[in-house]
Amino acid sequence: MTAFTAGELADYQMSAFLMAVYFRGLDVVETAALTFAMLHSGSVLDLGAIKRFKVDKHSTGGVGDKVSICLAPLVAACGVAVPMVSGRGLGHTGGTLDKLEAIPGFRTDLSVERFTQIVDDVGVCMIGQTKEIAPADRRMYALRDVTATVESIPLIVASILSKKLAEGIDGLVLDVKVGRGAFMKTEPEARKLAQALVDTGTHAGKKVVALLTDMSCPLGIAVGNANETREALQMLHGLGPRDLHECTMVLAEEMLVIAGRVTERARAREILEQAIADGAARRVMERMIEAQGGDPRVVAEPDRLSVAPSVPVVADSDGVVVEVDPLEIGLAAVALGAGRTRADQAVDPTVGIMVLAKPGTVVKRGSVLAEVQTRDAASSATVTRVRNAFRLGLERGAEVPLVHGKVEPSVPRPASSKAE
Amino acid sequence: MTAFTAGELADYQMSAFLMAVYFRGLDVVETAALTFAMLHSGSVLDLGAIKRFKVDKHSTGGVGDKVSICLAPLVAACGVAVPMVSGRGLGHTGGTLDKLEAIPGFRTDLSVERFTQIVDDVGVCMIGQTKEIAPADRRMYALRDVTATVESIPLIVASILSKKLAEGIDGLVLDVKVGRGAFMKTEPEARKLAQALVDTGTHAGKKVVALLTDMSCPLGIAVGNANETREALQMLHGLGPRDLHECTMVLAEEMLVIAGRVTERARAREILEQAIADGAARRVMERMIEAQGGDPRVVAEPDRLSVAPSVPVVADSDGVVVEVDPLEIGLAAVALGAGRTRADQAVDPTVGIMVLAKPGTVVKRGSVLAEVQTRDAASSATVTRVRNAFRLGLERGAEVPLVHGKVEPSVPRPASSKAE
Repeated sequence: MTAFTAGELADYQMSAFLMAVYFRGLDVVETAALTFAMLHSGSVLDLGAIKRFKVDKHSTGGVGDKVSICLAPLVAACGVAVPMVSGRGLGHTGGTLDKLEAIPGFRTDLSVERFTQIVDDVGVCMIGQTKEIAPADRRMYALRDVTATVESIPLIVASILSKKLAEGIDGLVLDVKVGRGAFMKTEPEARKLAQALVDTGTHAGKKVVALLTDMSCPLGIAVGNANETREALQMLHGLGPRDLHECTMVLAEEMLVIAGRVTERARAREILEQAIADGAARRVMERMIEAQGGDPRVVAEPDRLSVAPSVPVVADSDGVVVEVDPLEIGLAAVALGAGRTRADQAVDPTVGIMVLAKPGTVVKRGSVLAEVQTRDAASSATVTRVRNAFRLGLERGAEVPLVHGKVEPSVPRPASSKAE
Repeated sequence: MTAFTAGELADYQMSAFLMAVYFRGLDVVETAALTFAMLHSGSVLDLGAIKRFKVDKHSTGGVGDKVSICLAPLVAACGVAVPMVSGRGLGHTGGTLDKLEAIPGFRTDLSVERFTQIVDDVGVCMIGQTKEIAPADRRMYALRDVTATVESIPLIVASILSKKLAEGIDGLVLDVKVGRGAFMKTEPEARKLAQALVDTGTHAGKKVVALLTDMSCPLGIAVGNANETREALQMLHGLGPRDLHECTMVLAEEMLVIAGRVTERARAREILEQAIADGAARRVMERMIEAQGGDPRVVAEPDRLSVAPSVPVVADSDGVVVEVDPLEIGLAAVALGAGRTRADQAVDPTVGIMVLAKPGTVVKRGSVLAEVQTRDAASSATVTRVRNAFRLGLERGAEVPLVHGKVEPSVPRPASSKAE
């Protein structure tokens, strides 16, 4: 990895290595070694000046997943430092950076010094990956993309963790999404990835836990950028959709437990609900937005985030919504311009889809299932595509739980690790 | 493969493919498809004008393996066409081209037209691989070398057969060497490679059979270039070492059977012995050498091939020769300058090693075990190395058979194939 970073190892040798890992796998120790080597291909943030326990959350990606935006200030409001380095959307899954940039003036390209300072002052800061963080990962990802080796658990783990460990965190809560809208379509696959992430992170000396959460349907109502940030801000008012609220809360609880802020999850929930009810979470969010150059008024008034005009998508028969295909909704949002198919494309923050009729909703022919937010008059193909993402049935299906499981370390944390 | 040949597929993708094949393998149909694609990356000789059945022999390489040089004219003298495209030595194994070029004036870089004409006129011609034959194989081999994927049976098979099928042959006899001096060290490995070669060649419509022959000791006495060609020519006088004579005969028998020249191997042996006894094989060799620009007098007088002065290697104790390590002898010959460690090195045709005391020979302290043929006075390191390649014991070991087995096709030949 040192030779690769220095440009002394040819791409053809790295791609052969990637294929070897794809077929042979790596064990926890090997994955940790690869992760460390990738981590040290670039700069590692030194947040040692911040004495609080530092925890981040990472999601493997889904449709409508705006959890980071409400979770980070909420957890910070409860006394835990949250240094968060996020990514952009690619394919059907969105990215936190794109969503945050819908806030007028908000900057995600801060210097490392400014980032550290904001985490120390406000308790939370959300920036994008800098060129200095794990540069080997970017070159490896490009090779994985062209050699069909993206879907390798140890390579996914090393890629995620090399970037997360570069943040200088003490703990990490992983949200491994499972279902049609996620990278891992089935629970066994998701569990395998979660265990590898948790064990490798633990072997690296961090406190790590993972939740497997549902992605058989878009999370919340909004899918896009400005509309998702709106929804995340509404959640900080206690007005978020039920599934978004719950997903944020269960992950935030784990962060508070990992940080040693509480020992009982029930107590964590109380503290978190209080931080919403008394406005502490909103105040942290305002301070963070202001520190990052954005307009803090969006927190009190989420509708300041402008979205494109809506075109309704209506049911063409009576029935109960049995399924809303998150992959189709995600791809339709990309087609509208809310996402990208190549890393160098720009997104339109104002466009998106509002999934109004979630599974279990009883509808009549002509009921509004969703809204397409678009500036394009000729949106009938998208409307049809969004309608087809809804499967109507005669009766309500069994309710899908939000949390499919929790994955804890199966390996010990090295004795020298920082205690909470 | 078409894109790779056209330069449209990057090396990093090919190397990932090579590693995938290394770990996952290819079945017979897949190996044949890869072979055909590599074959058609370049020119395929059209020997359709030659009406006789055309058979070649290919050896996977050993130490002292000069069989091609005596076998090709011998088989041609029995009425079978032998179009032979050979390689150069690399590492501890020698190459037929290097050995042939010890004949003054002999040229191996003939045009395709001249090659075809000589095969038609004389019955045999021996040239080197042209740039036009299977160019994809050369680039793939270079990538295999730097990605640790050389030792993959389907890749070995495709590499060998793509070059052999480019010769326009109807049949092929494979000599898969087994033992310490060979690529395949054990019989099960050698058998696996032989079966893959035979099945893939058969699937490609050729008549193919393989013999597993011993390489636990150098073949014959001479190891080098001019000295090996001398020995091969002596064999055409009926004066070759017993193991070289036998190895040449068993392979030649298979070629005559495959070509339909005889149905019984015993009858093949009679015809072959007759071609040596009556001088027919030597006359074919003379005609071939003359046609290829060489001095045909070397056939009648093999000592015309000049070799370097000899330094004796003597036994330092009494005993029986139990083992002569072919790998050590081969590497010592390379160190003398008879072989090469990189493809761009030149060889000195006059240097080499004569293995005089083969396994089973009773020796006294001071008996000559071998001779080092060298122009370098300071050859004591080589003498020591060669001496150490001989293991002396108290009693004779069990005799190792020359032929370890025969491998016939386990798949049918396509119905459209040319009959013998």
